[in-house]
Amino acid sequence: MHTGAKSQTFLRTVSQLLAMTAYTATVTVRLKTGVLDPEAETTQRALERLGFELESLRSADRFEIDLEADSKEAAAERVEEMAERLLANPTIHDYDVEVEER
Amino acid sequence: MHTGAKSQTFLRTVSQLLAMTAYTATVTVRLKTGVLDPEAETTQRALERLGFELESLRSADRFEIDLEADSKEAAAERVEEMAERLLANPTIHDYDVEVEER
Repeated sequence: MHTGAKSQTFLRTVSQLLAMTAYTATVTVRLKTGVLDPEAETTQRALERLGFELESLRSADRFEIDLEADSKEAAAERVEEMAERLLANPTIHDYDVEVEER
Repeated sequence: MHTGAKSQTFLRTVSQLLAMTAYTATVTVRLKTGVLDPEAETTQRALERLGFELESLRSADRFEIDLEADSKEAAAERVEEMAERLLANPTIHDYDVEVEER
């Protein structure tokens, strides 16, 4: 590759990197309503045995992800794909994504 | 117990119940900074193997608790005690509590 072309690519990569912004995305993964939640039931019964009064309890998993992206939308899109492919099981889970600039 | 006294107690209980408000408290339990998080590390590596770019990932447990209480402060206090006694291990976890009226 001609040195001119090489430095061109290098400069483009650097400028792309500089244009990136740091975000923290939070993914909250919950069991869909109606899906049994044995962990939550066990926790609720343990709390009641300790004498606490509560009507119901639901548990959820939460992932806080630090990433660099061109925009807030790009960050949200990438994290939604992470949820679809790994963090959540679409058959039994619902999930929501929040993105904040760091 | 004299019937008058009985109905007094009954009335007081009913009025206390009526004065209660329905809240949802959310407890988010995180590992303290510096405590190893093997689940998060495994999840991050799996995401990277799928080709995702991310800087870091932290996992947290989240409990959503429906309860009745006299006030928002009373609801928060009860849920903080639940966290201290069962939901979080004070040695390795930090937690925060949010309370919303239902």
